Amino acid sequence: MIEKKMRLGNLFVFYGQLLTAKQQDILELYCHNDLSLGEISEDLEISRQAVYDTIRRGEKLLESYEEKLGLMVRFHESEKRMKNLVSEIDKLKSIILEDGAQELLLKEIEEIKERAAAVAE
Amino acid sequence: MIEKKMRLGNLFVFYGQLLTAKQQDILELYCHNDLSLGEISEDLEISRQAVYDTIRRGEKLLESYEEKLGLMVRFHESEKRMKNLVSEIDKLKSIILEDGAQELLLKEIEEIKERAAAVAE
Repeated sequence: MIEKKMRLGNLFVFYGQLLTAKQQDILELYCHNDLSLGEISEDLEISRQAVYDTIRRGEKLLESYEEKLGLMVRFHESEKRMKNLVSEIDKLKSIILEDGAQELLLKEIEEIKERAAAVAE
Repeated sequence: MIEKKMRLGNLFVFYGQLLTAKQQDILELYCHNDLSLGEISEDLEISRQAVYDTIRRGEKLLESYEEKLGLMVRFHESEKRMKNLVSEIDKLKSIILEDGAQELLLKEIEEIKERAAAVAE
């Protein structure tokens, strides 16, 4: 359930601007302010059912954008690779601090470069 | 004019799936197969004016998606940073090959790491 809500929050960050102002208002309160359906219903003076329907409709739309464009998954993959790259550079640093073996360093740098080039593609 | 068409081609890669099948067909021929309006008109047996209108309408829609979401510019910035990162790693390699100065190497690695972390954000 929390994972589902986190996914919805992420989708909203990417494609939220394609929703109507009303959908955006409700999803903002639900995903980012973490309000319950009841709280949103009170705040906006609309029925709990209307809140629920808007969130489900918004979720369906956001999922359809991701299904068509796949930009969120692309961003997250690139982010993951970048984090690996940072930890590889850390490894490189520890090799230099430990013994400075030139051959090993060059091999590591080549590997990191390949990884960086793969992200840039 | 060529720059305008290249931008349209890039926008089409990002958001093309949000257009109708007909708009996609025509923009595919125009941007990726590089056909002229006249050639597309002959191929699809529709008027040159209809081809023109569809391309302009498609372009307007694609630009509105980018204006709202800004994902293309975000991707291109990240790509540019990654290319800088690759050239920085090259520089690191040349330092190792030249003199292997440990202090200089650690400084370079710290800089690359900061840059990589900035991309991952």
